[in-house]
Amino acid sequence: MKIQKVETELYHVPLSRAMVDAIHGVQKEFSLIVAKITTDDGATGMGYTYSVGQVGGTSIATLIHDNLVPLLIGEDPRRIEHLWEKMWWALHYVGRSGIAVFALSAVDTALWDLKARLADEPLWRFLGGHDNKAEAYGGGIDFELSIDELLKQTQGFLDAGLNAIKIKIGRDSIAQECERIHAMRDFLGPDRKLMVDVNMKWSVEKAIRAARAFEPYDLYWIEEPTIPDDVEGNRRIQVEGGIPVATGENLHSIYEFRQMIADGGVSFPDADISNLGGITALMKVAHIAEAHNRNLTTHGIQEMHVSCLAAIPNASLLEIHAFRVDDFLVHPLEIKDGYAYASDRPGHGVVIDWDKIAKHKIAFKSAQG
Amino acid sequence: MKIQKVETELYHVPLSRAMVDAIHGVQKEFSLIVAKITTDDGATGMGYTYSVGQVGGTSIATLIHDNLVPLLIGEDPRRIEHLWEKMWWALHYVGRSGIAVFALSAVDTALWDLKARLADEPLWRFLGGHDNKAEAYGGGIDFELSIDELLKQTQGFLDAGLNAIKIKIGRDSIAQECERIHAMRDFLGPDRKLMVDVNMKWSVEKAIRAARAFEPYDLYWIEEPTIPDDVEGNRRIQVEGGIPVATGENLHSIYEFRQMIADGGVSFPDADISNLGGITALMKVAHIAEAHNRNLTTHGIQEMHVSCLAAIPNASLLEIHAFRVDDFLVHPLEIKDGYAYASDRPGHGVVIDWDKIAKHKIAFKSAQG
Repeated sequence: MKIQKVETELYHVPLSRAMVDAIHGVQKEFSLIVAKITTDDGATGMGYTYSVGQVGGTSIATLIHDNLVPLLIGEDPRRIEHLWEKMWWALHYVGRSGIAVFALSAVDTALWDLKARLADEPLWRFLGGHDNKAEAYGGGIDFELSIDELLKQTQGFLDAGLNAIKIKIGRDSIAQECERIHAMRDFLGPDRKLMVDVNMKWSVEKAIRAARAFEPYDLYWIEEPTIPDDVEGNRRIQVEGGIPVATGENLHSIYEFRQMIADGGVSFPDADISNLGGITALMKVAHIAEAHNRNLTTHGIQEMHVSCLAAIPNASLLEIHAFRVDDFLVHPLEIKDGYAYASDRPGHGVVIDWDKIAKHKIAFKSAQG
Repeated sequence: MKIQKVETELYHVPLSRAMVDAIHGVQKEFSLIVAKITTDDGATGMGYTYSVGQVGGTSIATLIHDNLVPLLIGEDPRRIEHLWEKMWWALHYVGRSGIAVFALSAVDTALWDLKARLADEPLWRFLGGHDNKAEAYGGGIDFELSIDELLKQTQGFLDAGLNAIKIKIGRDSIAQECERIHAMRDFLGPDRKLMVDVNMKWSVEKAIRAARAFEPYDLYWIEEPTIPDDVEGNRRIQVEGGIPVATGENLHSIYEFRQMIADGGVSFPDADISNLGGITALMKVAHIAEAHNRNLTTHGIQEMHVSCLAAIPNASLLEIHAFRVDDFLVHPLEIKDGYAYASDRPGHGVVIDWDKIAKHKIAFKSAQG
């Protein structure tokens, strides 16, 4: 069995509502970069990565098209570790992280889809089969909402079957944040999980001060309180702030996760197959986390991640994120009583309505004249 | 003063002779990505980055063209820290390393060129002015050369005015490497500096074993004995192998360098303005190294790096590398008695013969149809 064709596609997908957070500003769309693999005997696999706004979308698509596809043609798609290593080292000089890993992620996810489909197995069972569901939380687009609007949006999450909520914070005023968090805790009652996400906006000192001020509200975690490059700073926030830290959406290798976990910078490693090197890398991070007695959470693309968290014994919460392809899913993600359910279709089971999304397709072509 | 225009250009430049090392295989060309900045009052600056073969060249150029240029137009080019931060955070989700940082590097170098030219100062003096020269070494393309050919090439370096030499190693057989290194040491005599470069090929255990076997040959450093992601492994090679480690050409942020230096993984931090975030980031790494009592060496593009090392008090050796634009330099780098001399022309003083290199230009255009 040999890979015969790899198609690279780029879409700029508008968000139904503009997103705002403390660090990325206003985002009105996201870039979706798709890799579709076909073998000589007609087996197929599909994977994708995405980026905020139009940041790096063309660059990621260009890298897949110009540099990864030639490495894949003629190869056995089932030898994922071989192909992963081949792509990692081919891109290494411009890689180890960033755009190279986003590109690798789309391809790796397509390879896993293909392999699980060959085995006629749903991905969650193919990868480990711990359970077919994952506890989920709603990650709000709420930085600029009034408290009334925030609570109204939260009610929407509860109505949709979610029992855990994360809100965006990161203002200068800790008192203002306390007011919002207090209102949320009152609204949710004492038993539902509540998290906050700083999107890297604060210094270590400020995050520690804030975490201490948040103590009455029993937060489940504080996410990205400061930059992910500062492992020791994240460790101090946990220890001195007395709050578990979730971080990882901006870590792009198993090495970065291993260090953050082993050096005590994170309680809830937050992985993302679309920017970490695909399912191959996420599963390795899951195992590293397990060996450190940590449970894994995931960032975005819940329609894919539900199958990863459902596979492993050390799953924490699945983020239900706003950068969603939901409008184009033939089978929307099922959420009930606080849990999201993994697809039982072969492969990842994510089926995109390509006709419906076609209007957002960018006439991508290689940059090389 | 405002930036009016930023031109992005891509070249695939053939190497006069194919290069081979232990990890990257055979390379016949390199990708050169150029950023040319012009202000509304006609001031100009030029910077570039490069990649091995055609790896990521189109992707880097695409990222500059599609994502960085719009951030720069209308900005004051002299506010480099402001622009650097703006670019870093705009690319952060797909950044922190890799292709995003290569793109940023080309722009940053152009900004420093422009700023030093405005001040009518040569870059080496503008950046610090410690001395106008840097001790240099020849980095050979020699992995597949016989020992006779290796010594002949080394004689060429000595004839060119160099007194320090680095050879490529990384074979399975340590005995074979000892034979080559022994021949080199005999040839050079006891006083000239001799280094070896493993290009990340070995495990930590193998590198320690090899370093101990190399003890009789008085090596000045062993470069990239293993992957740069393994800080503790590099530290062990230094301590248990009894040999200084040089590493850094695959580190892409001040954070990665800080950690490697502070945690004892490197004696000679090896920085490169073309993949670390330009002159801004290299100077910061130089200062971090100085505060740790370490001297900085540089990787490749000697025509630029000579001005950086000439600026600082803690300069180690300047690598004279084979990925050279020498064939297209209007003013070739001057080397004499073991030293390379920084240009006294305003800015970095690197003038490329654009007519001569034009035949290698790729008809680059945005991937976004």
